[in-house]
This record gives sequence, C-alpha cells and structure tokens, in this order.
Amino acid sequence: MRILVLGGDGYLGWPTALHLSRRGNAVAIADNFVRRQYDAELGVDSLVPISHMRRRIDLWEEVSGMRIDLFVGDLTDAEFVERCLREFRPEAIVHFAEQRSAPYSMIDRRHAVYTQVNNVVGTLNLLYAIAAIDPAIHLVKLGTMGEYGTPNIDIEEGFIEITHRGRTDVLPYPKQPGSFYHLSKVHDSHNIMFACKIWGLRSTDLNQGIVYGQETDETVLHPGLATRFDYDGVFGTVLNRFCVQAVAGLPLTVYGKGGQTRGMLDIRDTLACIELAVQNPPAEGEYRVFNQFTESYSVRQLAELVSDTYPGRVEIADSFENPRVEQEDHYYRAAHTKLLDLGLVPHLLSSATISSILALAERHRDRIDPNVIGTGVDWRRPKTVESPVNAVGRPPSGSSESRGRGAEIDSVNR
Amino acid sequence: MRILVLGGDGYLGWPTALHLSRRGNAVAIADNFVRRQYDAELGVDSLVPISHMRRRIDLWEEVSGMRIDLFVGDLTDAEFVERCLREFRPEAIVHFAEQRSAPYSMIDRRHAVYTQVNNVVGTLNLLYAIAAIDPAIHLVKLGTMGEYGTPNIDIEEGFIEITHRGRTDVLPYPKQPGSFYHLSKVHDSHNIMFACKIWGLRSTDLNQGIVYGQETDETVLHPGLATRFDYDGVFGTVLNRFCVQAVAGLPLTVYGKGGQTRGMLDIRDTLACIELAVQNPPAEGEYRVFNQFTESYSVRQLAELVSDTYPGRVEIADSFENPRVEQEDHYYRAAHTKLLDLGLVPHLLSSATISSILALAERHRDRIDPNVIGTGVDWRRPKTVESPVNAVGRPPSGSSESRGRGAEIDSVNR
Repeated sequence: MRILVLGGDGYLGWPTALHLSRRGNAVAIADNFVRRQYDAELGVDSLVPISHMRRRIDLWEEVSGMRIDLFVGDLTDAEFVERCLREFRPEAIVHFAEQRSAPYSMIDRRHAVYTQVNNVVGTLNLLYAIAAIDPAIHLVKLGTMGEYGTPNIDIEEGFIEITHRGRTDVLPYPKQPGSFYHLSKVHDSHNIMFACKIWGLRSTDLNQGIVYGQETDETVLHPGLATRFDYDGVFGTVLNRFCVQAVAGLPLTVYGKGGQTRGMLDIRDTLACIELAVQNPPAEGEYRVFNQFTESYSVRQLAELVSDTYPGRVEIADSFENPRVEQEDHYYRAAHTKLLDLGLVPHLLSSATISSILALAERHRDRIDPNVIGTGVDWRRPKTVESPVNAVGRPPSGSSESRGRGAEIDSVNR
Repeated sequence: MRILVLGGDGYLGWPTALHLSRRGNAVAIADNFVRRQYDAELGVDSLVPISHMRRRIDLWEEVSGMRIDLFVGDLTDAEFVERCLREFRPEAIVHFAEQRSAPYSMIDRRHAVYTQVNNVVGTLNLLYAIAAIDPAIHLVKLGTMGEYGTPNIDIEEGFIEITHRGRTDVLPYPKQPGSFYHLSKVHDSHNIMFACKIWGLRSTDLNQGIVYGQETDETVLHPGLATRFDYDGVFGTVLNRFCVQAVAGLPLTVYGKGGQTRGMLDIRDTLACIELAVQNPPAEGEYRVFNQFTESYSVRQLAELVSDTYPGRVEIADSFENPRVEQEDHYYRAAHTKLLDLGLVPHLLSSATISSILALAERHRDRIDPNVIGTGVDWRRPKTVESPVNAVGRPPSGSSESRGRGAEIDSVNR
C-alpha cells in the first residue's frame, strides 16, 4: 500500500514510517522539522541522539533496501499539502503532524493560538486536499484519550448511545479536554467527522493514550535509526520522565495526589495499532474512533513501578502542587476493544519494559540535563505576553525557584 | 454597567448596542467592519441602507443624549483586544464579532480556514485578555442552536445528564454541527468552557436560533439608526429571505423536503435575551448555556406563513436540490426555559411581524437584486482553489445556471 506519514520526523512518526516500510508498503514522510525547532526554543534535546532525516532515510535504505520518500513543508501551506498528495498518490495517510504537548500549548497566549491554528488549519487543509484529489484515501488521524477528560461514567470509543426522555440516539461522546492542545484535537475530531459526512471521506481517529518506550523492531537495527526520547517538562511524557528522574537521582515528581489515571501503551503497540487501522479501512463516509491504549495506570502507580524496578534508591516526591487543573482522584474506565478485535496483541507494561527504559536512560545519562525536567508552565497563570525563554522548561538562573521548580513538575501529556 | 459590544456594526450587534445604551449602560463598540468588506467581496448590499458607524454614533447621541465609544480593530490582533479592555474597563462583554454565515464558510478552503481561524483566535485572544486584565468580566458569547445539529433526542441547554452502565454524570451536550462555521462555534464553546474552568472566568454562551425582523424600539427612532437586513444567498437568513422573495415575485425557495426544523426568534427578543444575560451574570468559574430562541418552525411552515400573509400571489418552489448536507425530515425538540425563567416575554411570530418585514421589503424593493438571492455554495463540492467572485452569490452572467440557481437556493444560516 502507498502510505504517507505526516510528521514522520517525530517520536512516533519516524518509527511508524520504518515499521510500515519494513512491512512492504511504499512510504513517504512529510515534515517541516518544527519539532526540532521547539528543542531550540526550549533549550532541550532528545535524550537519545537522533540523526537528520536525510541521513536516517539513507541509512534505512542501506539496512532494509527500502526507500522512503521525503516531502519537506508545512501542512498549514495548502499548496504543499496538495503537492504531497498529487505527487505521492497515497492510499492511506497517517497524520502525526500536530503540536502534541499540552504544557507547550499552555505556555502563553501565543503558544495556545499557535497550537490551535497549526493543528486545526493543517488538518482542514488535509481534508480539503483529500476531498479534492482522492476521497478514497483513508485518513488515520492521531487523536488523544485526553479528548474525553475524566467523566464519571465509562468512556466509549468515540460515540455513546444515549436514552433521554424516552428516545434513543447514538451521539458523539461528550468531550472535556484539559488543555488548549487537547482542545485542538477535539476541534479536529469535529471537523473530520463533518468532512466524512459531507464529502464521503473515510477516517480513523486514534484516541491514543500515553506512549512509553523508545525502541522498536526497526529502530534497533542501527543506532542512526533511533527515534527521539523526550524527558523535559514540556515534551516528556510521564513514564519516560520517571525513568530519567530515577537514573538522575531526582525525585519522581507526582502531581498532587497522583490519582490521575490514564490509558497507556508501549511504543511498539502504537505501530501495531496504526498498521491494523491501515489494513482495515472504514467504509466510504465512515468516521470511526478507536481508543488506542492497552492498560490504565495512575501516575502514583507508575512512580511506584519505576521505584520498585530501579535497582538504586528512588524517592517519590510527594504533595507537589499540581500545575494543571485536573481531578487528582477520579473514576476512570475506558473502552478499548476495537483494536483488540482487529487482532492487536498488546505488549503489557512489565518490569522488563521499565528496565529497558531505565537502561536507555543509563546509557545516555551524560546527556541528562536536570534543569529541563521541570516546567514553568502553570495552567492557572494566563500569560498574554511573551515568556522569556528561560522561564520555560528552565528556571531563571539564580532565581529562588531554580531548584524548587525543577522537582515540582511532572507531565502527563496525553 | 459598562458593556463592550464586539461586532457592534453587525445586524444584531448595532441594535444591541443601542438597546443597552438606552437602558442607561455605558456602551462601547469594537468592530473591524469586515462585514461591510464581505458585501464588497460578494457584490451584495443590505436591503436597508445603513450609515457609517461614526455617523450612526453621532446620530444616536443627538437622539438619545447617550454617547457610544468606538474601538476600530480586529480581535485576531491580541494587542487591540487588550487595549479595548484596558481603556474601556468593561464589566460585561457581548461578543458578536465572528464570521456568522454557514454558506460563507463553505465557499471554499480559504473561506473555511478564514472562518475557523477568525472566530477561534478572536475568542482565544479575548479569553486571555479577560483572564489577564479582569477575570470578573462577564463574557456573553453568541453561539448558535446549529451547534447541536438534529439529534434524535431532546436538545438540552448545553449539558445533559447521562446514565450509562449504572453510573451518572452531567456532561457537555454532544455536538453535530453542519458547516465549518457552525463547527467554529463548537470549537469556541469548548475553549470557553475550559477557560472558565482553569481561570475562573464567567461566561454565558447564547445558543441562538435564527433571527428575523429588522426594527427595534431604538432603530426606529431615526432612519439613520437602521441596522442591516441581508437577503442574499450567503448572509440572508430564512424568514427575511422568504419575505424579500415574496415581494420580488420570486418563488420562495425551500430546500428539498423543507422539513428542516429550527429554533427562531424575533430580533427584539435577541436584545431582551442579551440584556437578561448581562443583568444576571453567572458565578465565578461558571460556564452556562442558554438556548436563545422562542419557537420552532420547519422551513416549509415558514414559507407557508409568508405565502398566507402576503397579499399578492406567492409561489413556493418545490423539490429543489438541497445544497446542504442535512436531514430534511427529523425529530426536533429543544429546551429553552432558562431565559424564560429570567423573565423573557417573547414576541411570538405573528402575521403582524411577517407583514412588517414584508412592508420593509416593499419600501426598499428598488434595492432588491434578484441575482444575489441564490448562492453557488454547495456543501458537497470541496473547492480547494479560489472561486471566481461571480460564482458566489451571483451566477456567471450568461451561464445556463444564471436563472436556475437564483431560485434554487435558500438559506438557514443559524
């Protein structure tokens, strides 16, 4: 199959492109490399060194004999989007190309507006291009479990049957997202559902949980094929961050009570889920939602798992003020059967998995910058003016906050 | 009270500003006059001549002794938004300042993207400015009943209690909007709900039905105080358009079966509802939704009411292909008790009301351009390139469509 991976330079986009390529698909990547620009903006780096895209692609050809095509450009540029589709003629598009950090979207007004415009306009341009060029293309869109928030009833996969005053309908599941980033994904979901309805497009919206791990069957074939691994306060996700904190001898930072429960999955399962979605396209006009995670854990449970697995002493930091506005103790039960029905065999979270992430952090411990693990991003503080760069991800040097905030913050991005 | 009316140059913004001013409030208007730019773009005009804003404001001072302040600028310009709030120091903000036409948003990709960026970014900037400058400001935001779509269960006011697998929660009412414009309002609703939650803002989201009529107690005080009246295929709304078609001797254009049922209200009730919302602000952190309409009618019923009222012969055009993708025969029952509970006494739709709109159209019949009543906007045709100007609202002269399309189209904007 011909598959276009949008955002193919990112944490999950790159290993997804490799995985689909190795399975014999013709793969092209589109990316504007803005994820690397965020690194420069925030003064952070992937824990694992990553190669430039052109080198990665050449290396992959050497290793696998498969060539991946590359389009460099921005989805908010409609002409670029149309050119990718006309030149590559994909049968499926896997769409990772969005700003994906909740804390980044909450830095200040400019970052909130950037996140929503970037994500919503990119996806709108894509929908128009698909509709105009080839409505049969299957759009596999990365959403997030965070679109649902934490309702006091079971979360279903995208839609819920509601009986109300004696009548019944199946309606879109109500959304209560917790950041301007999560909101951008909710906006996308509504736009995509509408485009499927009016233009007969077909789309799978993958409401993904928090991904952990870094190595896949393909990336381990050569160090130059590694994907990025973020542990900073803005882009790092919870389990990956806890492992780096353990190795760095820093307390594992749990927000508030730590009862925040989220769906989680292994990076290898992300790849398997996307492949299953691509292999089993929806019908013409169908908009379907899969909840893409395999297990649920609370933040405190994850901290304890890391603490139990790490051979050294690990402190679990307690009673830090939660910079987010979220429930810290709540009901959480979310359906996730549709991908299992398609044949997903999950990699469940084990000590072995955690050990492998810890080993990764050990291998690159000289690259750990303890100052970037904290984040200055506070949900309650509406900043309308530019934040000085050193206020994001790195406290101002010499400030009284400079030790405190580093330990204060954790991140549950998805 | 000090009240800032955003979009105070529009069909409803201007009479709202007058009404609130006459009731003794200190009123300021902000507008970028883009509504008049749309007229130039589409080659259409208000049926009723309208004055420039500065002349209207001077005239209002002569008539009433009350001065309305004016800020000229764009809500997507964050500095402008902050300046309005810092200089005027409003206690309430009534926010009409969005692109409000469904057909306009469906013209092509550029108009879809413009509508969503304009509406979403303007409102985001406003939320940040309120949070930073004065979180006590009450944001009264114009939404639309079209956010709900036409579910097969009763529509409630913003939220619905759902019992599911033995557990119960009150959740945001599921949204199924029918155009990129309606989607932009759904995006706004989610963003505003979140801002209230994290920053403690207070907001009333008025999900308004389709407004009819043009004269209010204030605008009738002088011809120079008239508000605009749109009958074209892009900005005209259904009942106003039917009245102009009747006077022009054109068939009343009903889409498809005409069973599309919508909430409606008199322009004078819009003003009363906004005043009630402003006088009864929500609590700190509260996001509430009022369904702002007084009666429901199907499009066919409205056509028949106009036909029955007009003294001359009126043809109701039948079996035109619906350019929209929407149900033409559906269940529709929507709650609208919250504004009644606050004391709203509705002006229900009567022959007298329809007669007054017909009389208005008679007075300005020399300004009716039959070519702009149709619209070339088709929901099913995804246009990625610029439409030539004459393809919007006005068929290409000499084309075989030029008589046909004029009669084909109707508009149910809200």
